[in-house]
Amino acid sequence: MNNYKSIDDIADLDLAVNEALTFKQTQTSLTHLAKDMVLCMLFFNSSLRTRLSTQAAAFKLGMQVMVLNVDSDSWKLEFEDGTVMNMDKAEHIKEAVQVVSQYADIIGVRAFPELISRQSDEAEPVIKAFVKYATVPVFSLESATEHPLQALTDVMTIKEFVPKKKPKVVLSWAPHPRKLPHAVANSFVKAMKRVDCEFVITHPEGYHLNPELTKDVMINTDQKQAMQGADVVYTKNWSCYEPYGGIVMPKEDWMITSEKIGTAKFMHCLPVRRNVVVADEVLDSSNSLVIEQANNRTYAALWVINKLLNGKD
Amino acid sequence: MNNYKSIDDIADLDLAVNEALTFKQTQTSLTHLAKDMVLCMLFFNSSLRTRLSTQAAAFKLGMQVMVLNVDSDSWKLEFEDGTVMNMDKAEHIKEAVQVVSQYADIIGVRAFPELISRQSDEAEPVIKAFVKYATVPVFSLESATEHPLQALTDVMTIKEFVPKKKPKVVLSWAPHPRKLPHAVANSFVKAMKRVDCEFVITHPEGYHLNPELTKDVMINTDQKQAMQGADVVYTKNWSCYEPYGGIVMPKEDWMITSEKIGTAKFMHCLPVRRNVVVADEVLDSSNSLVIEQANNRTYAALWVINKLLNGKD
Amino acid sequence: MNNYKSIDDIADLDLAVNEALTFKQTQTSLTHLAKDMVLCMLFFNSSLRTRLSTQAAAFKLGMQVMVLNVDSDSWKLEFEDGTVMNMDKAEHIKEAVQVVSQYADIIGVRAFPELISRQSDEAEPVIKAFVKYATVPVFSLESATEHPLQALTDVMTIKEFVPKKKPKVVLSWAPHPRKLPHAVANSFVKAMKRVDCEFVITHPEGYHLNPELTKDVMINTDQKQAMQGADVVYTKNWSCYEPYGGIVMPKEDWMITSEKIGTAKFMHCLPVRRNVVVADEVLDSSNSLVIEQANNRTYAALWVINKLLNGKD
Repeated sequence: MNNYKSIDDIADLDLAVNEALTFKQTQTSLTHLAKDMVLCMLFFNSSLRTRLSTQAAAFKLGMQVMVLNVDSDSWKLEFEDGTVMNMDKAEHIKEAVQVVSQYADIIGVRAFPELISRQSDEAEPVIKAFVKYATVPVFSLESATEHPLQALTDVMTIKEFVPKKKPKVVLSWAPHPRKLPHAVANSFVKAMKRVDCEFVITHPEGYHLNPELTKDVMINTDQKQAMQGADVVYTKNWSCYEPYGGIVMPKEDWMITSEKIGTAKFMHCLPVRRNVVVADEVLDSSNSLVIEQANNRTYAALWVINKLLNGKD
Repeated sequence: MNNYKSIDDIADLDLAVNEALTFKQTQTSLTHLAKDMVLCMLFFNSSLRTRLSTQAAAFKLGMQVMVLNVDSDSWKLEFEDGTVMNMDKAEHIKEAVQVVSQYADIIGVRAFPELISRQSDEAEPVIKAFVKYATVPVFSLESATEHPLQALTDVMTIKEFVPKKKPKVVLSWAPHPRKLPHAVANSFVKAMKRVDCEFVITHPEGYHLNPELTKDVMINTDQKQAMQGADVVYTKNWSCYEPYGGIVMPKEDWMITSEKIGTAKFMHCLPVRRNVVVADEVLDSSNSLVIEQANNRTYAALWVINKLLNGKD
Repeated sequence: MNNYKSIDDIADLDLAVNEALTFKQTQTSLTHLAKDMVLCMLFFNSSLRTRLSTQAAAFKLGMQVMVLNVDSDSWKLEFEDGTVMNMDKAEHIKEAVQVVSQYADIIGVRAFPELISRQSDEAEPVIKAFVKYATVPVFSLESATEHPLQALTDVMTIKEFVPKKKPKVVLSWAPHPRKLPHAVANSFVKAMKRVDCEFVITHPEGYHLNPELTKDVMINTDQKQAMQGADVVYTKNWSCYEPYGGIVMPKEDWMITSEKIGTAKFMHCLPVRRNVVVADEVLDSSNSLVIEQANNRTYAALWVINKLLNGKD
């Protein structure tokens, strides 16, 4: 693994999950693994969990960390090739990435989609430019269409807290006041396709994901029916895929309630809007895994950073 | 001490001050005390001294530090329970604090009052939510009504630079162009009530502090008379307690001058507005302790962090 | 060297360049050189390379780093003496610098010019106040009129990549949509005056630099002629010196092209606007040294920090 921009970059997902959970359980210091190496994290967008958990992971590995909010700490970057840069963008990504590669041993980058043009978001201009120009390993802190650290975390959490052999896992769309990216859902779908489970996606009419991605997945637009017998309900809002970035209508009745979820485990990547996406009763119940998920973010990041710095495959 | 949100959380203030000053004087490295542990500082408001001195303290203890400006690096947090989160707040404090607790060994948090509703500020929603939901120790980097790191610093500084047995300490209100919180003054009052000194508060009519807090303290609205024979003049602006957050009138003649202060030591928590709060002649004189106070911030923070991580009481 | 605010603060430039390049080539860890010491970087303006490369240098020396964006993380600072601070500035630089000196072993500071009053920019109020009030060494991360870390980098890069004994070095003005400071050009001129080379400056009529600085330097307003036989073309935009901060006219034909530059090495401090300052063909050719220059920023900073902390001269 040379870079980590998709859950599919992990060749052996089972092994990765086991190794990451072993890191979590170890009682001994891991600071020798990347002693004095440097992580540079570049944020084009806001972050709380990803920023802090990845920093925590790097610290556990003995690393130093530098963090840059690209737009506010520095300036806007140009991603197009061949442009005459006489507008508001002061530096080309080509220079920026080559330069930053010289200051760190590994680079993490977050850049959300614009949700205006599907084609341009799916081209993944930011993460791809980093991978193209960097001379050190690059990993995604969430890109336009994927959130692979989250997906690894999610598989770890299911493995840890849902011991059943072939669990029924339901990915349910939920309401949200803003139009959100597909990245978390996409990466979760990719992950579930590689895990031994009964996987179902449920969403209102008009909220399908990328059909190419979900073509082999069972989809049911009746949320109640889809969730019947579920062991895990993974909840997430996303905006329409067609028309891209749109919102069909509120659909408040898609909120996850305790009546709907029953005894299934509740999962969500956070941040989550209470009583919009999910009722307090669910989030505050012992069936909610959201805090454990967030904890596993550290060990997913730790595994990825260690693999990229020290792994050979 | 499980958390540090008030100077009153310190059981033995004398001992704390002695220990903190011992840390200051030690010539040997303290990095073994919290080697590889992680401090997370969360700022809802601006900071210079608190941010840098607490970071310096953590470094002296061998720690790693992660800093987050909550609103600009991440997003707005919801503090109310039971709300339908369909407006601008993306995450509930309940999740945020539980999550961050998993990434650090100790959390520092700064959140100023809004100075709109006394009741809501005195409820201390932010620091209380952190203490409630955190699974690691929490300390205040200044809350709505207290600034306990500053108060510990102030007692240390008086102990160090005012050797007199029972000094006369005057807390004097001073003018300021903006309406300011009561936190520093409140914590200083709490501290002085526990120190062997002759303590007087002086302020213009209409600028009294929380009467519950000052009921046993001598108050004199004649600044000149109050400052007579003072060994220490601690100066600070604050807005009205009633009407809460108000400003009665400019009162420019309350500025501290060398004529008024005489040979007393001048103290202020900084930042201080020159020639508004205090005349240049006072701040630039050898009787000003403000730089020494700022220095002691590091050792107050170091004592608090060490106590919360390693102390048993 | 007690502080580093100009390339002229380096007594023996040849020795400095050799030592810095030796640091670059060393294969052994340098973390013992400033183990557990603390660098505080204060930014009044945006930064990418300077921020990250200086942080990288400090990490290589075993240091901890604290970074503050002065205006957004804290508040505005007053630089004038004797003012009544009743406006928007909350703290005087005099207190701020004395205070920060107590939290770190060395301070780096960046403050660009305002490009409104030449007199006030040339007075260098920010870096001079830091040097005046700091009780620890101070170094410039670019000031109003100088960028000495860049200049040391540039001499290192020429030494490393242009082996010729007395190379012809041309500093060429280039077009830019915004009015830019003179700092990089000034420091480069100062450096080239101390290096054994044939140094020529070329700029359009009206774009001369500070005449005091360039009085012994060959100046040619015919770019093509000036660049003839050049071994190095160092390119940079700057605004007019008279009228100060002005822009005479676009001059798009001053962009550096491969036809103009021939086989000379291309240098630029970055960020650079592609196809405005320089054509893609030049920047993407093997004659471009810009990425190597950026790499050398780390070792220039490392040399300066180490010298200020450990050097005796």
